Amino acid sequence: MAYQDTFELQTRGRGTTEITSRVAQVVAASGIATGVAHVYVQHTSCSLMITENADPDVLKDLETLARRWAPDGDPAYRHDAEGDDDMSAHGRSILTGTSVSVPVGNGKLLIGTWQGICLWEHRTHAHTRTIVVTVTG
Amino acid sequence: MAYQDTFELQTRGRGTTEITSRVAQVVAASGIATGVAHVYVQHTSCSLMITENADPDVLKDLETLARRWAPDGDPAYRHDAEGDDDMSAHGRSILTGTSVSVPVGNGKLLIGTWQGICLWEHRTHAHTRTIVVTVTG
Amino acid sequence: MAYQDTFELQTRGRGTTEITSRVAQVVAASGIATGVAHVYVQHTSCSLMITENADPDVLKDLETLARRWAPDGDPAYRHDAEGDDDMSAHGRSILTGTSVSVPVGNGKLLIGTWQGICLWEHRTHAHTRTIVVTVTG
Repeated sequence: MAYQDTFELQTRGRGTTEITSRVAQVVAASGIATGVAHVYVQHTSCSLMITENADPDVLKDLETLARRWAPDGDPAYRHDAEGDDDMSAHGRSILTGTSVSVPVGNGKLLIGTWQGICLWEHRTHAHTRTIVVTVTG
Repeated sequence: MAYQDTFELQTRGRGTTEITSRVAQVVAASGIATGVAHVYVQHTSCSLMITENADPDVLKDLETLARRWAPDGDPAYRHDAEGDDDMSAHGRSILTGTSVSVPVGNGKLLIGTWQGICLWEHRTHAHTRTIVVTVTG
Repeated sequence: MAYQDTFELQTRGRGTTEITSRVAQVVAASGIATGVAHVYVQHTSCSLMITENADPDVLKDLETLARRWAPDGDPAYRHDAEGDDDMSAHGRSILTGTSVSVPVGNGKLLIGTWQGICLWEHRTHAHTRTIVVTVTG
């Protein structure tokens, strides 16, 4: 059994947007009691991750680390057609990935107390991002 | 069809604990012949990964790399409420992620000969970690 | 419901091979309309990722970044039995991981316009890699 829903999210440039409650709505609508909720983003310059959602400083520090993992405008890059944040966005994207998945039990997301599902926009400008949630069980 | 089991693991501080056989037990109990085993950890300062499980030096070398990817006590961090290993643990956690999944075929985990499923504790002190295994098929 | 197929891929040493159309064939053969396609590689020195597949320079730049994330022949490594690319391959492998998964809707892979599923060989020499695709729904 599988249930699927797609939604769009408007980002405001580089940074994170928590989507846990939006994913939980799809799980509730699915009527599936036991299974897995799969969340997928159809882009290569943003990504999805699960991280601490209590202290906003964690998200700022993750940006600090990501700037080191894949610096903007690195002179070694060949791919820079869309600017200094183009290749760095692809580099950041593959490190956390285009999907996350969370178990579903008793019809609810079995996410940890301090965990949040976040869309991480890696481009500096605002973008519209399409997210597909599929619940299987 | 889906089958789910939850267990706790006591870590001894930073380092890895292989849980492949524990996950294989859940797959056997599920009675599912073909599908996917999804393993999830409900925390943001440890992670799950699949890596070589034959030579313990690989795990030591992965610690060496992780210390570079997200150093302890970096002066750039703002989030340090729980000590020098607090933010570094969150940074390490997002790089390998909170879940791994392995195909199931003929009722068994189709894991490679040299692969092991590992919980990677990123905090320096011991913690109790909750792991949810869901088999869908 | 689940459908599974396994295939081998011959790599030509370090670099990427796109396998999106091969995965799409398994999805078509599955007859599953709504669900998730899970792609898994049974090795620890290559990995799977979803990234931009239009400009080959992106893949070259990802190699540039990966060389920094896990350098070949680093003097800090203890595990070097198979050469300078042995431990670096394990380090690269855990960063992008052994599986990717893509939603299936209307019987097709719901992959983004610019996304491709790639096997990323991290060893410098050619290898035969086994990939398991499981569609659940």
